[in-house]
Amino acid sequence: MSGLERLSLNQITTKRWSLPEAVQGCVDAGIPAIGLWRDKVAETGLTEAAARVRDAGLTVSSLCRGGFLTADGPGTRQAALTENIRALEEAAELGTDTLVMVVGGLPEGSRDLAGARHRVADLLAELAPHAGDHGVRLAIEPLHPMFCADRAVVSTLAQALDLAAGHPPQQVGVVVDSYHVWWDPDLPRQIERAGPRIASFQVCDWTLPLPADSLLGRGHVGDGHIDFRALTDQVTAAGYTGWIEVEIFNERIWDTPGEQTVRTVIERHLTHVHGS
Amino acid sequence: MSGLERLSLNQITTKRWSLPEAVQGCVDAGIPAIGLWRDKVAETGLTEAAARVRDAGLTVSSLCRGGFLTADGPGTRQAALTENIRALEEAAELGTDTLVMVVGGLPEGSRDLAGARHRVADLLAELAPHAGDHGVRLAIEPLHPMFCADRAVVSTLAQALDLAAGHPPQQVGVVVDSYHVWWDPDLPRQIERAGPRIASFQVCDWTLPLPADSLLGRGHVGDGHIDFRALTDQVTAAGYTGWIEVEIFNERIWDTPGEQTVRTVIERHLTHVHGS
Repeated sequence: MSGLERLSLNQITTKRWSLPEAVQGCVDAGIPAIGLWRDKVAETGLTEAAARVRDAGLTVSSLCRGGFLTADGPGTRQAALTENIRALEEAAELGTDTLVMVVGGLPEGSRDLAGARHRVADLLAELAPHAGDHGVRLAIEPLHPMFCADRAVVSTLAQALDLAAGHPPQQVGVVVDSYHVWWDPDLPRQIERAGPRIASFQVCDWTLPLPADSLLGRGHVGDGHIDFRALTDQVTAAGYTGWIEVEIFNERIWDTPGEQTVRTVIERHLTHVHGS
Repeated sequence: MSGLERLSLNQITTKRWSLPEAVQGCVDAGIPAIGLWRDKVAETGLTEAAARVRDAGLTVSSLCRGGFLTADGPGTRQAALTENIRALEEAAELGTDTLVMVVGGLPEGSRDLAGARHRVADLLAELAPHAGDHGVRLAIEPLHPMFCADRAVVSTLAQALDLAAGHPPQQVGVVVDSYHVWWDPDLPRQIERAGPRIASFQVCDWTLPLPADSLLGRGHVGDGHIDFRALTDQVTAAGYTGWIEVEIFNERIWDTPGEQTVRTVIERHLTHVHGS
């Protein structure tokens, strides 16, 4: 279908689907790319998963996710390194050039935010050359500040770009996810600054009220408060020509049949994003 | 009691108390200042409320709140102006030099965040001279980005300072509220930049999980993830010597007897804030 050339379905959006079902769902709907999750890949098996997407002719726009780099102490540090190198290998095997990095929150009982952020920078420096070796880019995802304590101490695009700045652009980039950054008064300037560092553009909408589990409050593009036309224009003006990946965490959407969700995803993409 | 010299109780923290009860609660506990809310003042009556706090020997550290400057259209604009001038008059009558400003979210159905922010700057410019006339400072409060759509399109201290910059410091200042700004990677730099613009320092803690009503997730100082020692040190180093106002929105705390809440407030102040 015309207008879907840059659309990717992040498979969390159709969470109840297995990886083979999500691949088939994309093929049936004419969506040319898919964002994969490591747990779903593991369910199917890495080799089988890679074969499924390749045989279906889909591009893997990203693998979610590496990260969790804030843990303190030498044992957990080494474990995080090992786990992220494994994620890089999986990304390479799946044929994607983008590993989404959610950097992790404060360790249990810690209030040392500056320290946690320092450890992220430190581990990232160790990981970057490995990313280069695998031809995969570490895509640092700033998460909405409401996730700072428990999920990601990287909270703004500026901060992600500061972290990326010390590394080659082909090794470390950033994710622009509408849900996490839309509120930022400095966003237009930081998107412009990001330029070739933009490794992934993810979209979903900010809807209210937030549900009891604030992780699951995201809506279909067009259902909330974000101006996707303006945001897409900014990302495009910064030189990004890559995938536009729809990633939605929402229990109600997860309970909707996948085919219906995919139809909504396509409709909203054509209405609110495509053509910007 | 020694160590309480800079402590103020924002009366929302003991929400079930009327204004006279909150005043008496402060006096009984040896808390020298109180932050008032306009609805509570109206319940008691402005003149009576002013007399009560004056007779009790309390300082009014701030009045909550003015703002809501984002509404579109000439009618709503004029209404916002009128309402804020009334709030300035009330602040002056109550003897406080600080009117806390929550600037408002996106108008119903709007996705024009830049436009809403522009209207805030515009109305602030009209209000600032009135603030000067009343000897009251408009204290712009950046709210946590999770309130950007529905409560305040001012989301960072940097943004609040940019808004304030065009006006005399005695007319327009900023609020540093731990809950709203603790996550900001640029915070230390912006607090330093703020210097004499800091009109109010409010404290409460970031606790998880967020409740269904995300407005009400705030905890007693020390119950969550914020390093109050570091934050207070930064605010002090910026030259702020004013009130440290405890403002907590939390249904469970509101359901606790006021005397008990005040005891906890004092204990946490002495443990986590005082002496920084």
